[in-house]
Order: sequence, then structure tokens, then C-alpha cells
Amino acid sequence: MKKIYFNELENYFDKEIEICGFVENIRNIKWVQFIVLRDSTEKIQVTIEKSEEKNQEMVELVNNLSVESTIKVTGSLKKNENVKLRGMEFIPTKIEITSKSDLELPLNIHDKEAQLLDQRLDYRWLDLRNEYNFNIFKIQSDLVKYMREFLYNNDFTEIHTPKLIGAASESGSEVFEVKYFDRNAYLAQSPQFYKQMAIASGFDRVFEVAPVFRAENSNTNRHTTEFTGFDLEFAYIDSYQDVMDLEEELLTYALKKLNEKHGELAKRLYNKEIVVPKNKFPRIKLKDLYMELEKRYNYKIDESEKNDLTTEAEKLSYKYAMEEFGSEFIFVTDFPKDKRAFYHMRENDIPQGYDLIYRGVEITTGAQREHRYDVLVKQAKEKGLDKDVEFYLEFFKYGCPPHGGFGLGIDRLTMLILGIATIKESMFIFRGPNRLTP
Amino acid sequence: MKKIYFNELENYFDKEIEICGFVENIRNIKWVQFIVLRDSTEKIQVTIEKSEEKNQEMVELVNNLSVESTIKVTGSLKKNENVKLRGMEFIPTKIEITSKSDLELPLNIHDKEAQLLDQRLDYRWLDLRNEYNFNIFKIQSDLVKYMREFLYNNDFTEIHTPKLIGAASESGSEVFEVKYFDRNAYLAQSPQFYKQMAIASGFDRVFEVAPVFRAENSNTNRHTTEFTGFDLEFAYIDSYQDVMDLEEELLTYALKKLNEKHGELAKRLYNKEIVVPKNKFPRIKLKDLYMELEKRYNYKIDESEKNDLTTEAEKLSYKYAMEEFGSEFIFVTDFPKDKRAFYHMRENDIPQGYDLIYRGVEITTGAQREHRYDVLVKQAKEKGLDKDVEFYLEFFKYGCPPHGGFGLGIDRLTMLILGIATIKESMFIFRGPNRLTP
Repeated sequence: MKKIYFNELENYFDKEIEICGFVENIRNIKWVQFIVLRDSTEKIQVTIEKSEEKNQEMVELVNNLSVESTIKVTGSLKKNENVKLRGMEFIPTKIEITSKSDLELPLNIHDKEAQLLDQRLDYRWLDLRNEYNFNIFKIQSDLVKYMREFLYNNDFTEIHTPKLIGAASESGSEVFEVKYFDRNAYLAQSPQFYKQMAIASGFDRVFEVAPVFRAENSNTNRHTTEFTGFDLEFAYIDSYQDVMDLEEELLTYALKKLNEKHGELAKRLYNKEIVVPKNKFPRIKLKDLYMELEKRYNYKIDESEKNDLTTEAEKLSYKYAMEEFGSEFIFVTDFPKDKRAFYHMRENDIPQGYDLIYRGVEITTGAQREHRYDVLVKQAKEKGLDKDVEFYLEFFKYGCPPHGGFGLGIDRLTMLILGIATIKESMFIFRGPNRLTP
Repeated sequence: MKKIYFNELENYFDKEIEICGFVENIRNIKWVQFIVLRDSTEKIQVTIEKSEEKNQEMVELVNNLSVESTIKVTGSLKKNENVKLRGMEFIPTKIEITSKSDLELPLNIHDKEAQLLDQRLDYRWLDLRNEYNFNIFKIQSDLVKYMREFLYNNDFTEIHTPKLIGAASESGSEVFEVKYFDRNAYLAQSPQFYKQMAIASGFDRVFEVAPVFRAENSNTNRHTTEFTGFDLEFAYIDSYQDVMDLEEELLTYALKKLNEKHGELAKRLYNKEIVVPKNKFPRIKLKDLYMELEKRYNYKIDESEKNDLTTEAEKLSYKYAMEEFGSEFIFVTDFPKDKRAFYHMRENDIPQGYDLIYRGVEITTGAQREHRYDVLVKQAKEKGLDKDVEFYLEFFKYGCPPHGGFGLGIDRLTMLILGIATIKESMFIFRGPNRLTP
């Protein structure tokens, strides 16, 4: 029998049906037993009159029922205005326990603050039963769906690039080593090289949603050793302005759709508004940003730090973008070349790329890439990487159109959209230097 | 300026526009130069009259142009019935080389049989410029898009589960080991345990498209050490028949859409029809299948082999399914328990699962899972795995609804749909025991 979801129960009044879900709550009072049953969509009250002779078997079963068990209930749905939960109740004729929960739950599911985060992560499958946590991933699933939708509509091709690679990629550091038969392999830090390979292969526009791996031994609320990357690359651009344009359109599209579907839920559960950008995102050079931050907020830092965005500057840039442009997003451009990857194209020695700051946190690095073999080799050499990235340089030897792209982390983006305190909560299962379980 | 794709050039006759792409071919004859330019959608001829004074700079440039370079061309598109390629030509006023290809190409791009597969894989980014190879991935992208579409329409949630895991999973063998700071981690062989965790968390229906890793030291045309898995799991099923029903619907939906969009292309490039299933897929018990194969095709194997499907039996089952049911698919059920994973539910000691054979090759193993903690622990112990999978067993201690699911490999499915000879060609970038590059 096809499962009837609880959010569609209104279509089944007074018919004999079968419902099933988790036992969220049991109240056993003098004349009556109440069960609150939960599925992924809604809750429903099951009411058992103790006095009725035909109910005795059920009454006995419910006396021994533990919360969080799953049950299957046959019976019919009745309107009842006295029932607080949805003004309806399910009157059962038969209850079957499909799985039994241990009496002693290691977590308080309904009050996530009742235990430490680490305890919750140890029992993540119970922690996720809390509606706050649960809905993060219902929303994240739609976020990625809408982002993909935008790219399909814009003729992007989805690719699946290898995560096992032969040489330590990009920077050479912070790469996990894998025992690969009689040699070593490494886990890809990003699909950067391979999405560019796709461009060199003639795929004009590609994207990938896949895990990326970072062997960073840091324990912050923003870092993790494995996360889901959303990466794209597209050809025949005129400059990195085209890349910013595309990212702006993509995020605006996705946030609009997300707000339509989950705006109310986001307000209720996370006390957060999903704000749909109304204008283009402001774009400012790093140097000018620091000038503004100093002028407006008296933010002064040492000259030596001005080559990159500090965490504090990211926060203040949000304030600035909101005050000056009413924008939660701001593109920061014109970083100095020693702070950017060798494969970023340069013009007058300035990397043609950007960081995108959203609600005060960097979510993306994007750029036009250097597609000319000779220039690219020179830039790799300059960073001392020419040997490590030799295989990658080859991609550009036989023609490759001008192109650019960016990457972002789905989990960090989800965290910021919903105002989740830590990425440990906005990842389905968190991985850090000290956490490989469950 | 926004790139004009070559398949939409018909909208731009007699206007000054800019086009760009790869130089596929150059013909330099007495009075005229012809360039065939290619992008991901189509080709177009560029024609330069040598005699015209204003063209001299271009003529010089084309004299030194190498094929597979990328160029940007300004000019206008003219109808010309004498041009074989689409009855039109582009008359340029300016040509700019955006990237130069080496004169000596290591591959013959337009005749893939002109070199060995291994050579082609060494230069995969050139190999993919061949339209046969290129379009495999355009089609694969849509295949996965349609499969996801079906699941979204059926209320599935997309999840992203960790690939770095703390314990060697499932079988304990064939797992890659990762150096994880001061300890070892392993690469997930499948998202099996974590998609089931999602079910225990209350996500009624989940799926994931992500890399899976197999440390199998085998070099066949079907095996690879890393591929893209398409996995799903859903709750509140009555039996594994529900799982087969869903897989049948999913594949029928995707093949129908795929045929609508790419049916013609598949015929032209791969000489293969994308057949949309018209009926339910036949379902047969392993034992009965062997009886049929013996009766019909005089296929006899030793009793000791009858506990599993041999490669030859897979092939013959296709013949049988076509002859008897006109179906390219056939579900084979009732495998003996020693050939099935411990987490398959059993009834009367028979695993409640199946293999799905498509065009003579196994593409899926699916099953109802054992969701009852006590039974599951017993079955794990029986296979001597209870210690290895301890963390997984915990997922079922606090209630978990009845559920089932399956997994399939995108690359193998693509290979079979298009009739590609080897999985090395139907993966964007192949990985095997001896291949970690590019």
C-alpha cells in the first residue's frame, strides 16, 4: 500500500486507511491514550478509547510502546475541533509495531540545547529528528535543485570528475594521501583542474556538485575536511565581470525560488528571512574597500594585512554593502597576485578574479582563468609549482577558449542562508580532524 | 559580449556579430581560405577571399593558424547554397587568435580508431573533442537530470553523505585507506549505510549522486576504482516489490525523456536505439531463470555456480527477456543468502532483494533492508561483521521504519544505453589500478 503522507491526510476523512510514522509522544491518561505520530511532512494524533472492549489489545500494546518506535496504524481519520493538533484525530482499529526504540534515548531530540553539540553529532541520526536540524536538509536539497535548474536552463552540462588523482593538486599542501595499490594517490581538493579540462575538451559550460577534500587540521565553525562543492566553469567570456554576472544571476534565481518555497519555514524555524537580491551585487576593489572601512568604521589594520580580507573586514564589508547598497552580497576584486592561485588570469599584473562575501562571510572565489599555455606555464613557475601541475598545464597546449568560473560550498551557503551557528550543523554528517563518525 | 552558439546562428543573418570556437579544419586554396569553426553545438564555415585588399592581414593570420586553436571572428553570416555545411558561411572582417594549438597533435581527433584506447585516455581532453566521445557526456548529463527530476517529483530529498569514513565499510575488503592526520580513514564503497541513516533520521525518501570507490585490482571493461553512484532509499515499503516498482518507473521515465531529446543523436552516433520500456519489467527467481536458460538455450552450469548469476547467464537472460517479454530489462530475485549482504531483509531465509539486468549486464542490486535491530545484529554476526559495522547497527536501535532501495552506476548505465564498448569511454575520466591520469 502506498504510504499516505501526513500533510495530505485531509483527503482521507472517514475512510479506512493505513498510516505509519515515528511515535513522537505518548500520553496515557485515565480513559484514553494519545499518540502523536510523525513523518517527514507533518504530525497526527492517534486516539484510543481505553474503555472500549475491542481496543484492549491496542491499549496493552501502547502501554508497552516506547517513543521513537515506528508503528503502522489502521483506522480512520475524524474531524475533531477539540484536538489542538490540526483539529483532527485518527481512530485506530489495529496498531502494529514496525520497529522498537530503546527505552533510553541518548539524546533529548526535542530540545537540542539540552546537550552538547558533540554529543548530538555522536548520535546524528537522532539529532536529525529535531525539526530544526531536519529541515536544514530539506531546504538544502531544494537550494541545490534550484541552482542546478538555473544551470540546465543556461545550457550547462553536468560532469563527474575524479576524486582520486595522481599528483597532489593546486597548492601541494593540505591534501589527503590515499594508498592506491602499490603507489600513492591523493584526494582532489576541488574539481578545478578537471572542470578546466572539460573546457579544453570543448564543453562550453560545465558544472559539478561533488565532495571536495581538505586536509586542514583546523577546528573552527567554518572548516571541515570534506564538504560538498558546487563548481562551474564556462567558456568564451570577455572578462571576470562575466563570471560575477553569472554568479549573481544564479544566486538570485535560487534564492527567489527558495524563498517562495521555504520563506515561511525559514522565518519560523530559523528566525531568518531569505532575502531575494533586488539589484546587481556591488563590486569593489580590495584597496577601496579598506579605505571605505577605515573612513566609515574607523577600521584600521596593518599594511601587511591589506593584501587579503581579514575575517573582521569580511564582517564589516557586509555592513558597508547593506548601508550603501542595501545588498547582502558584495564582490571584492583586485587582490594582489601573491594571494591568488597561479591559474587566475592577470591584467597589468592584477588577478582577474574576486571573492564574494555574503552576510559577512566569504562564500566564493572566482576568476577568469589563464588559458594561454605560455603565460600559464610562466605563472606556475613563478609560484614554484610547474612540476606539480605539469599534467594540468598540458590541457592548454592544443587550444583552449577563454573561460572562467567559481566554486562554492553548499554547506557554508546553507549555513549563511538560514543563520545556522556552525557548519557542523549545516552538513548532513560533519567531518573534522577529530571526527570521522558516525 | 554574450557568446552566440552555432546552433542559433540562423537568427543572425546579415548582422555584424562576433563568433568564436575551435578551428576544426583549414583549407587554403588558390583564391580562398576556408575555416571550419566548431563549438559545443554545431559547426560553421568561415570564408576569406584572398584577393580582397582588406583581407590581407587575415590571410596572413590564417596562413599561420594551426587546427584546434581557438579564434574569435568578427563579421557577418550570409546564406550561400553552395556551401555544403548548413548552406551558409561567415564572412569575416577581423580574426583574433584566442589560443594557439601546438602544430603537432598527439591524437587524430576525428578518427578515434587511429590510435589505441590507452593513448587516447592519456590525452583525454583531446579525445573528448571527437563528437562520439563528446556527446556521451552531453547525454549522460541529461540522463542524470531526468533521473533526479523523477525523484524530485516523487518527494525525494537529495543528501550528501561523507566519503571519508572511520571504519572499513560493508564487506571489509576492497576499501581504499586514507592517511587522516594521525590515524587512518577509508573511502566509502557506497553511501549504503548513510542513506539508511537518513531513513532512521526520518527522511522518508532520499537519494544521492556521488563518487564511490572500489579498491578492486581488476582490469576489465566494466570495472573501475571510482565511479559515480546513483543511490536511493525510501521508507514505508511493504516489500522489495515496491523497490522494483520504483526503479522500473524511474528508468522508464528517464529513458522516455532521453529518447525524446537524444533518440536521433543516439542512432546517428552510436547506432543504438534508446528503447523506452512499454511494460513492467519481468521478474523471475534465480532458480527459475536457470531452468529457463537450460530449457531454451541448453545452458548448463555446475550446481556450485547456480547460487549467483554468471556473466554468461546475464547475457542469456537478456535474450530470454526479449524473446518472452519483449523487455530489455529483467529483475532476478531469490538469491541465496550467502550471496547477499547481511543488511538485506530475509523472509523464510530468502533475501528480499534482486539484481536488475539490462541488455545482458547487471546494473543494480536492490533490496528491502532489515530495519529491526535484533535481527540485523544477528545477520551481521552470521557474516562475522558485527564488530566492523557496529556504528551502523546503532542506527537501528531507536526506531527505523521499514525501507528499501538500490544503487546503480551512472557510467555503466550510460555505456549500456549507448552501446559503448567499455566503461573507460563512458566515464568522463577513467580510473583503474594502472590509471590515475590525467
